[in-house]
Amino acid sequence: MNIKDYLEQKRIAVDRFLDDVSPPASTPPTTLHESMRYSLMAGGKRVRPILTIATAEALGTTPPGLMAVACSLEFIHTYSLIHDDLPSMDNDDFRRGKPTNHKVYGEAMAILAGDALLTMAFDLCSRPDLMKGCDPVRQVRLIQELAYGSGNAGMVGGQVFDIQAENKDIDLPTLQNIHKHKTGMLMRAAVRMGAIAAGATDRQLDDMTGYAEDIGLAFQIADDVLNVTGTREELGKNPNTDAERGKKTYPTFYGVDGAKKLADDCVTRAISRLSSFGPSADPLREIARYITSRKN
Amino acid sequence: MNIKDYLEQKRIAVDRFLDDVSPPASTPPTTLHESMRYSLMAGGKRVRPILTIATAEALGTTPPGLMAVACSLEFIHTYSLIHDDLPSMDNDDFRRGKPTNHKVYGEAMAILAGDALLTMAFDLCSRPDLMKGCDPVRQVRLIQELAYGSGNAGMVGGQVFDIQAENKDIDLPTLQNIHKHKTGMLMRAAVRMGAIAAGATDRQLDDMTGYAEDIGLAFQIADDVLNVTGTREELGKNPNTDAERGKKTYPTFYGVDGAKKLADDCVTRAISRLSSFGPSADPLREIARYITSRKN
Repeated sequence: MNIKDYLEQKRIAVDRFLDDVSPPASTPPTTLHESMRYSLMAGGKRVRPILTIATAEALGTTPPGLMAVACSLEFIHTYSLIHDDLPSMDNDDFRRGKPTNHKVYGEAMAILAGDALLTMAFDLCSRPDLMKGCDPVRQVRLIQELAYGSGNAGMVGGQVFDIQAENKDIDLPTLQNIHKHKTGMLMRAAVRMGAIAAGATDRQLDDMTGYAEDIGLAFQIADDVLNVTGTREELGKNPNTDAERGKKTYPTFYGVDGAKKLADDCVTRAISRLSSFGPSADPLREIARYITSRKN
Repeated sequence: MNIKDYLEQKRIAVDRFLDDVSPPASTPPTTLHESMRYSLMAGGKRVRPILTIATAEALGTTPPGLMAVACSLEFIHTYSLIHDDLPSMDNDDFRRGKPTNHKVYGEAMAILAGDALLTMAFDLCSRPDLMKGCDPVRQVRLIQELAYGSGNAGMVGGQVFDIQAENKDIDLPTLQNIHKHKTGMLMRAAVRMGAIAAGATDRQLDDMTGYAEDIGLAFQIADDVLNVTGTREELGKNPNTDAERGKKTYPTFYGVDGAKKLADDCVTRAISRLSSFGPSADPLREIARYITSRKN
């Protein structure tokens, strides 16, 4: 299989679905809907939804409602980017090569667009039209995974840990704790939601959870490395922003080469978690490899 | 029945449950959890959870998970207050007689506390321990009501309409549209969720929805009136802030007495919606009457 083709094909399907379910910019409140769409359709890689879909496929099925469940993760991810970019948070002016949401729509609208996207994630997972045919017991479990992975014990908690570490001389366990929550928990939810939607056994769910935790870490380390080695063109934003902010990252502790090696180890471990799965899990294996080779 | 005793008894039960389910301030991220608790436990009237409980009781039952479902609405309401008070929104320094969340914890933490409370509302409705015994089909419907009432088509949409109307010469239909969404949709969800949890028939759900829409409007008109006639002590914040901001309200269009009359008409209509219910709906009837007689 060619992973780039696979990712591209899934990305297009995800983009189409996101466009279909997002409130039209012509419906009031129009500015809110425009602002939601501006960030949602800004050309993300759709890593989380693709992980959900690939995990379900690894288990040999495309269960009803899978696309809505997968895309709910992109709604959460997008809202978190909008809020993280706000002046009182990271104060970023650019994201994916475009002005950030609050630079275009103002702070108030950016906060509300984030709130609406967050809420809509749960709307997607509970809408009768989009989730038709999904077993309701499973559906409630999916919603629970989404809430747990994105809330105070997950992604939001990670953002708090991150803010509190800024300009501080943090140690490695603190750094690991930040990433485990800030990026790890939502990727973990993405994979677990794919597994739950597909009716995974407990054993399969454990394997997939291990895979998710390993690639989550690899993804974050690779991000830290890219922040040092990437160009503005590749990243769509200024490079080296972490160092400028005095932020400690994996390269700070291990050097760029050491960090790269660490990410590679995570990828190897992630792939070994999938040993009980056949060729249907090849996309997950290739995604793991792709994480450390990507340029943005 | 004595409505004040009823409300007080339910308020205490809601407060206890909110305290029980909120993440302890001693668990990391401690500041986030403190900030969430600061606003959640700030002594609100708990109108929305009480409406949910009273509606289920009107239908003659206390279904499994009712308290979690009821309290999820208070999580949503609280997050909306935190975000509405932010400098880029209403820029309020006081709420319920205490400094607003961002005045105590800073803007970044206030935004994140709001995000975490919003997410936790959906966590509550999907947690197996809290929702044990709830029919999963009903549970998904409850989550859908919550998402719909609080998102872009509901409360968040209303906040956008409200912001866009500031310092503008709006007409009455625009004012009505703001309130229908900003406060109406979440109260509607509160009542409907109580009805759905209790297994209401379609006819009963329609009646309850009508009741909710009428008291939602009465509640907002009464709020506008209180903003003009209340004292700082009664309100826990400065009175007359609407007029100072050039904000059009029901008293602007109808005068204080006209607005009071309008609220009374809504209350009468709300009570007439409950004609098919017996004495079990007395708390709902009394709540409707209480709305226009309260002092804060």
